[in-house]
Amino acid sequence: MRDVVIAGIGQTDVAEHWEISLRELALYAMEAAMQDAGGLRPNALYVGNMLAASLSHQVHLGALLADFAGLHSIEAAQIEAAGASGAMAFRMGALAVASGSVDVALVLGVEKLSDQVASQVEAALAWATDTDYEAEQGLTATAQAAMLAQRYMHEYSVPDNALAAFPLTAHANAVANPHAMFRRAVKPELYAKAAMVSAPLNMFDIAPNADGAAAVLLTRPELLPPKFPHPLIEVAGSSAVTDTLALHDRPDPLSFNAARLSIERATKEAGITAKEADFFELFDAFSIYGALSMEAAGFAKSGEGWKFAQNGNIQLDGEMPIATMGGLKARGFPGGATGVYQVVESVLQLRGDAGDSQVKGANQALVQSLGGPASTAVTHVLRTLAEVN
Amino acid sequence: MRDVVIAGIGQTDVAEHWEISLRELALYAMEAAMQDAGGLRPNALYVGNMLAASLSHQVHLGALLADFAGLHSIEAAQIEAAGASGAMAFRMGALAVASGSVDVALVLGVEKLSDQVASQVEAALAWATDTDYEAEQGLTATAQAAMLAQRYMHEYSVPDNALAAFPLTAHANAVANPHAMFRRAVKPELYAKAAMVSAPLNMFDIAPNADGAAAVLLTRPELLPPKFPHPLIEVAGSSAVTDTLALHDRPDPLSFNAARLSIERATKEAGITAKEADFFELFDAFSIYGALSMEAAGFAKSGEGWKFAQNGNIQLDGEMPIATMGGLKARGFPGGATGVYQVVESVLQLRGDAGDSQVKGANQALVQSLGGPASTAVTHVLRTLAEVN
Repeated sequence: MRDVVIAGIGQTDVAEHWEISLRELALYAMEAAMQDAGGLRPNALYVGNMLAASLSHQVHLGALLADFAGLHSIEAAQIEAAGASGAMAFRMGALAVASGSVDVALVLGVEKLSDQVASQVEAALAWATDTDYEAEQGLTATAQAAMLAQRYMHEYSVPDNALAAFPLTAHANAVANPHAMFRRAVKPELYAKAAMVSAPLNMFDIAPNADGAAAVLLTRPELLPPKFPHPLIEVAGSSAVTDTLALHDRPDPLSFNAARLSIERATKEAGITAKEADFFELFDAFSIYGALSMEAAGFAKSGEGWKFAQNGNIQLDGEMPIATMGGLKARGFPGGATGVYQVVESVLQLRGDAGDSQVKGANQALVQSLGGPASTAVTHVLRTLAEVN
Repeated sequence: MRDVVIAGIGQTDVAEHWEISLRELALYAMEAAMQDAGGLRPNALYVGNMLAASLSHQVHLGALLADFAGLHSIEAAQIEAAGASGAMAFRMGALAVASGSVDVALVLGVEKLSDQVASQVEAALAWATDTDYEAEQGLTATAQAAMLAQRYMHEYSVPDNALAAFPLTAHANAVANPHAMFRRAVKPELYAKAAMVSAPLNMFDIAPNADGAAAVLLTRPELLPPKFPHPLIEVAGSSAVTDTLALHDRPDPLSFNAARLSIERATKEAGITAKEADFFELFDAFSIYGALSMEAAGFAKSGEGWKFAQNGNIQLDGEMPIATMGGLKARGFPGGATGVYQVVESVLQLRGDAGDSQVKGANQALVQSLGGPASTAVTHVLRTLAEVN
């Protein structure tokens, strides 16, 4: 990626925002990002969103939100790639800036899931699978993840509760994140007796649906004023890869190949190996995704992601910290907005502004979002620029 | 735009395809574009679609369609900007190629409107207005266009049937287009006695909802083999601009400002004036849009677009030909796919392959798509490259 930097970030709390509309959530995040960037104004708005058409009967979000934010005459569009919508919007924003056609891109992730009853949200989330052949048969994202976990535990003789390290780490890290949905640590005993949702996944193995909006401003460094108030973070590597939509079409459903490939491509572009990253913001929509993502990234062999997660390896001071601000599990899962939250949190880490969640000395982040069971995988390497201007 | 060329095109017939699914329509267009480009394969797929989530309960179209087409491990995403979705996907594809991060981008426009009853389609199309404040009050796109036409005729003392030249020209030009929905000329007498839909718009003033898929392959010229089978068409200018979503928020609802601005920016980038274009593929979803688009492009003064359209000025051999292969009115309006159809048809013109619809000596095209009443406007200047490789 040629010289694309993150100049500003903004986010709302992740929560069930019963009294705030989608457009208001979006506005707060956009305003915060522009203010954070010293008042920088965008030429373009790329909106990562997954379910506004399905749940809020609103398409044309780009024009709606540019208008509502008073961003007159800029370009705007919505980008959708299921759970990876926000990450894909971030990538399209980075490419637009790299192309030279757009000077400042505002990338927004926004999702409002609380306006509908839970069963309707679960149904709409299933429309990211193959609606005609999977969702129509009753498949939901949660049921699919549960089957994946069953297979994983069977195939690799994984003991009960072995995936607990993922949600427990996420919850511990969320305590210091003022925007997180669940700011409380969870003890192993509580995990072990939690209500089962879809065996073997209990309520702590599943990220909570939520509302939220996050935004970042992307630009080229030469367009910023000399005394810019923040360290600049460059987009050092970017890759998006798809796999078969259906798990049953894959040679090995337990291998997240698109996740692996997109990490290989993004880290190669950035000139690093995955292990050189200081932390890994992975897509823990389900605890099994955590294990499979660690394996796809090469941090553990197939079937051993859960082992790697033991003994503090994935904690803030561990070998490869994950979910540093709470991850999807404890920060919350605001659908297509999630990928932008992951970027915003990574920037806080790289700026050294992560408070008690800080990964010490972090200057390279590996960030990955998934759509479905890694049917889409989008990976970015973000890096602190030593010199500004 | 740095060195981005169109290497291949494909399209299905525009029709009510009752027995063909969305994915099959998409596959036909993608395969045709790859074959047209001598077997060139893409690294990325950008899907312009407006209503699959709303009408087919399918999101994650990028991964679904890359998978269905056997395009393994490429990146994929959906781009949405209401009626301009296809044009915006084309722009994002061009920016991705210009950035250097993507070598070959496949841009697909696809829409399936026939699977639902007409009232449901009209409701879903209204979700491109402000759902909470406009669609909820009963506003539809057709009713909105009719009010716009009422105001236009009142404000500028426009006689009855004065907009007829737009649909009549479109129908005349569609006769030679084998992919068009309505391949028959319409006489002024038939127009004059047509059934009124929403006064003053009769059935010929409104483009028909339809199904279809169109695709183009974008790349950089140096990546093509020396003996490439087609003249190359470059993306000489590209611009996307938004306006207020709601007409009532504009100082003058009869001025399509985003349409004007995006033409100014795209033609400036291409180094031409709008009048130097050899034809104008405009967005005639409604005949009133035709008049207002001609005015926004500067071909006529405010209130005089309908006059310019008289006396053959917009016919194939006129001063500024429009809707050369039938336009939205007679080729048909396949929702978010439309913008890609406009590009495919422009390429046929620039290659000299437009048959009896050919604009003689055409080598510069002005192509514009609108989302809502120019709430989004996306304009491209396409130009035949004199030298290949």
